[in-house]
Amino acid sequence: MPDTNLVILGATGDLTQRLLMPALYRLYRLGYARDLKITGYAVEDWSEQYFRDHIRKALHTFVPDYRADEGQAFCAGLDYITGSLEAGQMKEIGHRIKGSALFYLALPPPLFGTAAMALGEAGLAQASEGWRRLVVEKPFGTDLASAEILRKQIHSQWAEENILRIDHFLGKETTQNLMVFRFANRFLEPLWNSAHIAQVQISCPETLGVEHRAAYYDRAGALRDMLQNHLMQLFCLTAMEPPSSWDAEVLRDHKVEVLRAAVPFNEHTVCSWAARGQYTGGRIGSEEVPAYRQEPGIPGDSNTETFAALRFEINNWRWQGVPFYLRSGKRMASNCSEIAVQFRQVPDALPDGKIAPSNWMIFRLQPQESLNLVATAKKPGMEFATHTVVLTASYAQENAKEFSAYEQLLMDAIDGNCSHFLRFDEVEWAWRLLDPVLRAWSKGSPEEYAAGSEGPASQNHLLIPGHEWRPVTDPHKRDLL
Amino acid sequence: MPDTNLVILGATGDLTQRLLMPALYRLYRLGYARDLKITGYAVEDWSEQYFRDHIRKALHTFVPDYRADEGQAFCAGLDYITGSLEAGQMKEIGHRIKGSALFYLALPPPLFGTAAMALGEAGLAQASEGWRRLVVEKPFGTDLASAEILRKQIHSQWAEENILRIDHFLGKETTQNLMVFRFANRFLEPLWNSAHIAQVQISCPETLGVEHRAAYYDRAGALRDMLQNHLMQLFCLTAMEPPSSWDAEVLRDHKVEVLRAAVPFNEHTVCSWAARGQYTGGRIGSEEVPAYRQEPGIPGDSNTETFAALRFEINNWRWQGVPFYLRSGKRMASNCSEIAVQFRQVPDALPDGKIAPSNWMIFRLQPQESLNLVATAKKPGMEFATHTVVLTASYAQENAKEFSAYEQLLMDAIDGNCSHFLRFDEVEWAWRLLDPVLRAWSKGSPEEYAAGSEGPASQNHLLIPGHEWRPVTDPHKRDLL
Repeated sequence: MPDTNLVILGATGDLTQRLLMPALYRLYRLGYARDLKITGYAVEDWSEQYFRDHIRKALHTFVPDYRADEGQAFCAGLDYITGSLEAGQMKEIGHRIKGSALFYLALPPPLFGTAAMALGEAGLAQASEGWRRLVVEKPFGTDLASAEILRKQIHSQWAEENILRIDHFLGKETTQNLMVFRFANRFLEPLWNSAHIAQVQISCPETLGVEHRAAYYDRAGALRDMLQNHLMQLFCLTAMEPPSSWDAEVLRDHKVEVLRAAVPFNEHTVCSWAARGQYTGGRIGSEEVPAYRQEPGIPGDSNTETFAALRFEINNWRWQGVPFYLRSGKRMASNCSEIAVQFRQVPDALPDGKIAPSNWMIFRLQPQESLNLVATAKKPGMEFATHTVVLTASYAQENAKEFSAYEQLLMDAIDGNCSHFLRFDEVEWAWRLLDPVLRAWSKGSPEEYAAGSEGPASQNHLLIPGHEWRPVTDPHKRDLL
Repeated sequence: MPDTNLVILGATGDLTQRLLMPALYRLYRLGYARDLKITGYAVEDWSEQYFRDHIRKALHTFVPDYRADEGQAFCAGLDYITGSLEAGQMKEIGHRIKGSALFYLALPPPLFGTAAMALGEAGLAQASEGWRRLVVEKPFGTDLASAEILRKQIHSQWAEENILRIDHFLGKETTQNLMVFRFANRFLEPLWNSAHIAQVQISCPETLGVEHRAAYYDRAGALRDMLQNHLMQLFCLTAMEPPSSWDAEVLRDHKVEVLRAAVPFNEHTVCSWAARGQYTGGRIGSEEVPAYRQEPGIPGDSNTETFAALRFEINNWRWQGVPFYLRSGKRMASNCSEIAVQFRQVPDALPDGKIAPSNWMIFRLQPQESLNLVATAKKPGMEFATHTVVLTASYAQENAKEFSAYEQLLMDAIDGNCSHFLRFDEVEWAWRLLDPVLRAWSKGSPEEYAAGSEGPASQNHLLIPGHEWRPVTDPHKRDLL
């Protein structure tokens, strides 16, 4: 067996210390990938020992249940190479590693293309023994044109099947379960269409602000940061046709088919089917928080949206006429993320004369992962009355501290399982759908919404008559709505 | 408003003290039916005071949370009349009550006809003001012919709409919820047919033996005691077509339609679609229990079945080819009663190569009332593996001690709501279906099964290939099967 290498480009950066190394450390601790040789690569002229110490300190900071002895052992296996993104300097990597290798671009997005090309030019994209793969972080471009340029750069040296585009939502338990649950249960598929489903709401509100990512976030905005990748992936997994196998290509073919069937935005719908907002000062729980424009590192006249909502319709047999509402925002009233599927009404009034409330199938991602089926039952007691009951299964991981999306995806990348990575055409079609929105939003300014609120009022313009956004507040009450 | 009266015929008997009076006392305590005037009637020459004392003692024995002050107040309102079932003596009732009246036949079943006729002949079946209704306890006959005779006797004096035939299973919360839940939820109806459902199992095992009912039970047996009424009612509610209203006549029309569409037993299926057993000695938990033939009051050579299982198929568009398995037995391994609906298989193997286990929708009646949907989900963790999850909603009453089926049915009877009482044609068609089984079982003897077991082996002959009885043991594990 050839060695398996993980080479992190940008090893001195924030992503490495906050996410990658903690994930690799946890995998190590659980006995996974013990024979993985990890090499850091960056332009800083650090010694191997300095790099190991740096990572040890980072683990101490970012891993809640860090243990010094394990951390010491893990860091002792780390290598470090100093070098730039020029092919000539990268050849040093080739001298130090042999066999299979995963190159992880933990770099600022504008450097993805350069780094990928340089790796190829340094002869690292092929190996005489074993495989070579490239992990590309998000965002993959900032619009359709830039994504296409990036694709050409990377493809000049790397074959599509060896490129793993990360969307960490695809490593989340609830996302992976969505795929399994839809097709492992007989009771869903016959219902999963416009005859029985009225609407779908995919909501990922966050209470956090921009945190330490001001520079990146102000260039990106909510549409690029959350909708184009994470939420549209959830949209695809919710709407896709049943795959005939669990093969990565088949799965991704089916997801792309959803994007291709989605009704494109035109000059009218870009106003009525899309809404944006930016938070002003407010209150999250007991904490007073500043307006977006007052956050450190954010220009005082920024027009970047911190909230985005979209409505999609899908022009196929299954979904014709069923709106899919997607929204995400920062500094909202809760972190209550979910995919909520509303069934159509039943025809009859109930024995108590009430109209039966609609059933909802809810895949809850945050704050706890759970499956919920909101139903109507007889209210126990003397009266022949009804009430809402929720059939629920907690989906919490027993060892939630141990696994995160990154561990899952790193293992998949090492195993060569591409199912949970984006193929270029997924990225491409997502940008193709969103380009008209990006263009429209390059002018004017987003509607203000108070931090700690439900988001801007204009999000309601997306909804067809009779539909309402499920409130993001009070996650308990929501199940009973 | 005329007075409302409840007249209990057989007021000195066991049913009165064990079930009726405790139910009436609990209703009284909760503030229901406070203006109901209760009169006991029986042949015993008791004084009113003696009757009140007798009932007070019974409440003390049979109501777990009996309170002396409330009991005293309740019993102070009771009247008592001494008399036989002759019309002449019953006229005394007419002198003592006026207005609306419910006559409750808490009598040995062979006296139902006599009593109903005598009430009519005494002029009590009609009132100048208010209504008159008759509550008839089970069993309504012991076969089709005797039920028909009883019908003629009762109908000679009472109109069908004033006859309330009790099946206390129809007063149970889970039974009433089954009706509501099926038609108040969009997600069930599209699935509720032979395209998606593989089998239905209606199981009501009991750990109890014959208790204080030896004389009755040995004449009746499990088929008459449980299947002909309770389980066939659950069968009807599970299988019936959606009613267009909650009107009692429409509901009962739909239930009868199921019985009419059930495939009748013939000389072949009476062997292969029906099974009977009788318990021998064994162990229920830590308790050593005697064989049925050793129970007090049971003949040592009794061939009465204490376990009965039936398979029904329904010859209509919805259910063609879907077997409904019904079974009930005494001295079985648990009290875990349920209606369990198994969905058909999904077509694909799961990502882990397993075949997805079937979904089950389970209406649990005992030991706790609950709704359960057994499904397959991704198993949290690194492997892309699956496991069984149960979406569950407890259906326990907050005040379970307060309400029983009898309270519910007594209130319905007073309100004149016939939805949860049997119409004659329901009884008639149930007997019509079971008469061939009764005839076959009048010969030979039932298979023995050990007390505390799953019942006789011959019950497995009913099942079509691929089907298995859900084990009655270990109610927790069962949900995970």
